[in-house]
Amino acid sequence: MVPVSLPPSSPRIEFHPGDVIAPKGFWADGLNAGLRDQSLDMALLVSQESATFSGMFTTNAVRAAPVELSRAVHQQGLCRAVIINSKNANALTGALGTQDAQAMQAQVARELGLDVGDVAVASTGVIGWPLPMDRVRAGIFQLAARFREGDAGDGGAAAQAILTTDTATKTAACTVALSGGAVTIGMMAKGSGMIHPQMATMLAFFTTDAVIAKGALDACLHTAVERSFHRVSVDGDQSTNDMALMWANGASCVAVETADDMALFARGLTELAVHGARLIAADGEGANHLLSVCVSGASSEADAAQKARAIVRSALVKTAVYGGDPNWGRVLAAAGTVGVAFVPERVSLFMNEFPLYLHGEPVVGQDALWSASMDRPEIEFRLDLAQGREVAYAYGCDLTDGYVEINAHYRT
Amino acid sequence: MVPVSLPPSSPRIEFHPGDVIAPKGFWADGLNAGLRDQSLDMALLVSQESATFSGMFTTNAVRAAPVELSRAVHQQGLCRAVIINSKNANALTGALGTQDAQAMQAQVARELGLDVGDVAVASTGVIGWPLPMDRVRAGIFQLAARFREGDAGDGGAAAQAILTTDTATKTAACTVALSGGAVTIGMMAKGSGMIHPQMATMLAFFTTDAVIAKGALDACLHTAVERSFHRVSVDGDQSTNDMALMWANGASCVAVETADDMALFARGLTELAVHGARLIAADGEGANHLLSVCVSGASSEADAAQKARAIVRSALVKTAVYGGDPNWGRVLAAAGTVGVAFVPERVSLFMNEFPLYLHGEPVVGQDALWSASMDRPEIEFRLDLAQGREVAYAYGCDLTDGYVEINAHYRT
Repeated sequence: MVPVSLPPSSPRIEFHPGDVIAPKGFWADGLNAGLRDQSLDMALLVSQESATFSGMFTTNAVRAAPVELSRAVHQQGLCRAVIINSKNANALTGALGTQDAQAMQAQVARELGLDVGDVAVASTGVIGWPLPMDRVRAGIFQLAARFREGDAGDGGAAAQAILTTDTATKTAACTVALSGGAVTIGMMAKGSGMIHPQMATMLAFFTTDAVIAKGALDACLHTAVERSFHRVSVDGDQSTNDMALMWANGASCVAVETADDMALFARGLTELAVHGARLIAADGEGANHLLSVCVSGASSEADAAQKARAIVRSALVKTAVYGGDPNWGRVLAAAGTVGVAFVPERVSLFMNEFPLYLHGEPVVGQDALWSASMDRPEIEFRLDLAQGREVAYAYGCDLTDGYVEINAHYRT
Repeated sequence: MVPVSLPPSSPRIEFHPGDVIAPKGFWADGLNAGLRDQSLDMALLVSQESATFSGMFTTNAVRAAPVELSRAVHQQGLCRAVIINSKNANALTGALGTQDAQAMQAQVARELGLDVGDVAVASTGVIGWPLPMDRVRAGIFQLAARFREGDAGDGGAAAQAILTTDTATKTAACTVALSGGAVTIGMMAKGSGMIHPQMATMLAFFTTDAVIAKGALDACLHTAVERSFHRVSVDGDQSTNDMALMWANGASCVAVETADDMALFARGLTELAVHGARLIAADGEGANHLLSVCVSGASSEADAAQKARAIVRSALVKTAVYGGDPNWGRVLAAAGTVGVAFVPERVSLFMNEFPLYLHGEPVVGQDALWSASMDRPEIEFRLDLAQGREVAYAYGCDLTDGYVEINAHYRT
């Protein structure tokens, strides 16, 4: 995948490599249960103690069985564990699918000695095929045994096991210096195809050892997802299985207390989620470039976000980035299709450090220079509307032969 | 391009090969003015007498200069001629672009002895480059001379000259038996890339020798475009230059008089426009298949149309069609992202004559048979929502390596 560096650290938020077991009191592992091939395909994530729990879920009318079930756990507000499988989405599988998702939840609860309502379920992969439940059951049995027997666990293996066509794991962690001490937030995510807002079509799991109330956790997760996964588009297709789940187990004994703490915690979580979103975009199916779009000077953040998303979604912008063609007309045309009308004569467009279009007039004679700069792994377009002061970002990738190849023959 | 047959004739509407000069009293021709290469790139269409005129235009905030100009002609309601160039869209070209479009309009008016307001202008091609006006002027001069000198004209050459990356001309005509006699409607269109509703990102020109009032013509064109070009998606990108223009010059001396006439004329025009939309979809950039989608059993036509459009737009559906993969889960997932929520347990999905998903349960064991049937030029999905009685259609094409190849290097 296209390389993506960690966000810069700030005095009170420090990013570092790590994953969902970076915060205290979490355990995770992954294994191969033979759901399709020899790659890792099942993961279990457990909090040692009861944790405050929050989730956000796909808005697709077609929701996979595990989505319905995990949503119920979110509404109840406490959770100890999630069982995750890749290779098979358990979506559009009729009554059998619901039964299978419930069986996964019940087995995890039984083997870990938890209430059924303490266990979430997530699935990703091919739609419409029944789960091979014998193998799923054996996988759960093994994972639960490893946890019970005090195995160290392996957050990297868990991050590997949730992938589908992703080419690399997506993990990171950050430490946030709150007023009462340091707390850690960890993440693992998967993306790759069927990636488009709303609920940016992926699985993401966040853990923290902070002490935080359910309402505050919900608010922080909502903000973070809105600015990150809701701003990613790989192909404009929205999944049936998207979810972002977050556990806060309080194991650091440090609470998110003051308004300042809350702002700092939300910021750390948002930056971590944006990093996850950029990792997903950079590893979009067949991607050669990470495409970042910033729309500024908008009359509202919602309008800026809508336009930024339209640009990263545009097949013509995406193919131009693939071809190293600084075709700025396509960027402006894509922005023009949505939201508040703007005056083309006032807008300016930049690509990386180059102005392409300034206050309504094309910059001429620089095409060769611009084109040569497009071999960088990340291409950023900045569109200034000169209408107001609001700004929003969106993330995507180029559209390549590789995307077509992967998706023309995904099932076969 | 994928072969598309003419619509079946009905007792009072007969389809036949033909173009914009099939109706009486129209002249058209095309030539090479050297705007880019040796292919035809400029066309002139003239009505021998003053004609009632109607138009529909892109809703993109970024509108090319000729769009603004032709919209003003539409508002005034009468028109004699349109000058069209391909290879260059004259879009996002600043003040110079407006000046150039006005110069084209003025030159045609001068050389044909018309008022400036009697001339529409249409452009299509690359965005953001100034028109080579010396060559444009020479092209207009030659076309106008041919008309003045009584040349026979050539509707096929005009249809050729308006193409960009299209691989074939898009023309057809029909004769409608009104109460007072027969009238003819002719069409030429171009599509290929940047094709997505609203105003389905293309140029279309309709001519008729019927006598019809401006208000009735506007209504007929609106209905026809809504059911046809607004239902096409090649890549989800909306052009800055889309327009559908229509002239009614009354040369048949047969009027659209009764309510029955009006319904019949609107139906003939709509079927002609749907044929044009299907030709555009079938010749989408890189297309191997025409993708037709019918959503039935919806609670409103708008909802059915929104879902049908979401399906033809889905990159995952389009790549599956390319790969001959009957991946029905992607079709249902795409429909689930928009409009009125539906109950997956009640819906049914068919591909051509095969049921894939019946009342919420997957049909199993037929994949090889389905896949083998997908070598046909047209793949039709029919989704029944079991919610109501409304139906809508949409048209698109598969997403292939060819699309990526064409658009990665369009300008270079």
